[in-house]
Amino acid sequence: MGSVDPIVEALQRRAASDARVIALGGGLPSPRQFPRRALATAFLRTIGDPSALQYGWPEGHARLRAFIAARLAARGADIDADEVVVTSGAQQAIVIATQAIVGPGGRIATDEESYPAALDAFRTLGAIPVAGLDAPSTTAAYVMPAIANPRGRALDRAARGRLIASRRALLEDDAYAELRFDGAPPAPLVTEARGRVFHIGTFSKTLCPGLRVGWLVAPRRYQRRVLRAKRDQDLQSSTLAQAILVEALGLGADGDDAAIARAVESFDARLERLRRFYRRRAERLVRALRRHLPSWRVAMPEGGFSVWVDSDDALDDVTLLRAAVDEGVAFDPGRLFRPSRTPAPLALRLCFSAEPPDRLEEGVRRLARAVARVARAAHGARSATLHP
Amino acid sequence: MGSVDPIVEALQRRAASDARVIALGGGLPSPRQFPRRALATAFLRTIGDPSALQYGWPEGHARLRAFIAARLAARGADIDADEVVVTSGAQQAIVIATQAIVGPGGRIATDEESYPAALDAFRTLGAIPVAGLDAPSTTAAYVMPAIANPRGRALDRAARGRLIASRRALLEDDAYAELRFDGAPPAPLVTEARGRVFHIGTFSKTLCPGLRVGWLVAPRRYQRRVLRAKRDQDLQSSTLAQAILVEALGLGADGDDAAIARAVESFDARLERLRRFYRRRAERLVRALRRHLPSWRVAMPEGGFSVWVDSDDALDDVTLLRAAVDEGVAFDPGRLFRPSRTPAPLALRLCFSAEPPDRLEEGVRRLARAVARVARAAHGARSATLHP
Repeated sequence: MGSVDPIVEALQRRAASDARVIALGGGLPSPRQFPRRALATAFLRTIGDPSALQYGWPEGHARLRAFIAARLAARGADIDADEVVVTSGAQQAIVIATQAIVGPGGRIATDEESYPAALDAFRTLGAIPVAGLDAPSTTAAYVMPAIANPRGRALDRAARGRLIASRRALLEDDAYAELRFDGAPPAPLVTEARGRVFHIGTFSKTLCPGLRVGWLVAPRRYQRRVLRAKRDQDLQSSTLAQAILVEALGLGADGDDAAIARAVESFDARLERLRRFYRRRAERLVRALRRHLPSWRVAMPEGGFSVWVDSDDALDDVTLLRAAVDEGVAFDPGRLFRPSRTPAPLALRLCFSAEPPDRLEEGVRRLARAVARVARAAHGARSATLHP
Repeated sequence: MGSVDPIVEALQRRAASDARVIALGGGLPSPRQFPRRALATAFLRTIGDPSALQYGWPEGHARLRAFIAARLAARGADIDADEVVVTSGAQQAIVIATQAIVGPGGRIATDEESYPAALDAFRTLGAIPVAGLDAPSTTAAYVMPAIANPRGRALDRAARGRLIASRRALLEDDAYAELRFDGAPPAPLVTEARGRVFHIGTFSKTLCPGLRVGWLVAPRRYQRRVLRAKRDQDLQSSTLAQAILVEALGLGADGDDAAIARAVESFDARLERLRRFYRRRAERLVRALRRHLPSWRVAMPEGGFSVWVDSDDALDDVTLLRAAVDEGVAFDPGRLFRPSRTPAPLALRLCFSAEPPDRLEEGVRRLARAVARVARAAHGARSATLHP
């Protein structure tokens, strides 16, 4: 959590420490959907096995890798279990992939708005994120084809075609793919360009973030380098978290093909519940926005946790965030999602994932009050300037 | 686990997959000392709190940071809880500290033999590990002052004085400090050079590695950069692992000063048991070495998990490892610990931590057989060359 912008971070921390503040920012999954009972049962089965508490190999738990490969296979990707590297969340997978393909000064194409923690990681590695997937002189593109963060929409077919046709390395962040409301994620890019795609996924959105378990499937020629990077960075991801996951997925007793097929199916049943749950919340948020902030533009998302809101109001997003937190609601300022970091035109990411429906409605009401307040103040200031 | 040397790694994997092979390599803590009951109780208390499964802040759990600061304070270090950053094991702390102070081509002084995963991480970051803590033209030194890995001995007073007097940044890896058999770790370097020392620690040796929880205390002027690096690399360390730790340490209900003092004391009681346990194993291993390989040189360690063995036998360490695994015992070849990677003269790291005493004795017996076998083969080859 938190932004590298110190002012935004201070506001985020203030908001997070106050339960009265409604969280329309942050991109957090709903705690109601954390599989607490399954994790508890899994933990108690796991703790008897010393290997769950011991060091492990950098590539991760064999059954977990087999499960991840099987889910990708169900979407048409020809991935072997031993090509999957378990990472400490999707973030580490993004970093390892970036290090493998982009040197300092290298340019990475992204959507016009993209995931802030990826943009920040690129910058720290000395790479330059550039808005627009077709941006010239880029050596790689970072993209979330199934469900983009923040817009919550799929990559359109033409843009996808151009990505596949381009010669660049592709970082495919598939974090929200399984949370498409229609339950029909497109085939991952890795199915069409295995030799150039770094495929990235995570259990943070579909199970819970606290386990910190994600994965990376690299082009085969990068496999050795990726494993070396993984070992260098933290030796291995938590063996305990992986062992709990393996048990919770139903693979504790047996990891043969039939067991994995059953686990894949049972995970699908869970995803179906999640999709209904988050779709209801998305609809509620979008309805509330159209009611309370009718001049703002928002599209119903196709999945994920958030929507992107554009506005013609000439307001500063961070000023608005400060006023919003005062009113009791937090959101993510649009500038964080832009490779250029520009605050204009005004835009926001709003998340429907973390709060119950009535709080979503009330959050938007508070946001509308904050907008009115900041607009009045801005108008007052302009009037004062015009008529001194 | 595992080495970046593909031949060594293949042997390590073969050894690890066969329970009959006695593990004198690897540096693993004894599974008998994993606090399984405490972790299970802690887990069940933790799972009711959704924040244990949610995203968290990059710096880590406040109570855990307070506990770490209190333990350092008990050793004379003036560290505030908010200066502690929880990391995914000591390894991530090493990487973050290195990135902060050593650029590509930078030289890092180390002991003549040092921790292989640190050496590998330095190399991947483009830095050059150099043998000898006083090596010239080094911008930083990486050192384990309380208990060095692999030798299991403290830094001597004169060398420590020179380190403090030198102007370089110091990476102080304190992983084994609390496992000094005398229970009297020296004051950490951070007490004498707060502005230049990156202090690194871990729960992997004293509780269990599977949680992947370590820490980094950076000089204050690096704090912001370190937090940024931590967030970039994996957003945060596992909230679940941290929440379990906080409960297992006795800080679940309350994190005030008195509760922390009690937790520190109760951890000390655990450490005392661990020290007795590992000291007995160390004595057994050293005795066995003196009995079965009397020409090899080994010093009784002062703590930690391992000893370093020097030999005048003109044998190759990896050839010996292959023969040893055939005989049913594994060890860590000396070359892995040398910044220069040179295999000569023959040396080995032997760990007494992971195996029960009778297996230690039997392991050394098998090792002696492997030595005899390789020596015979080498002698035969030399004879054949001399008398064709």
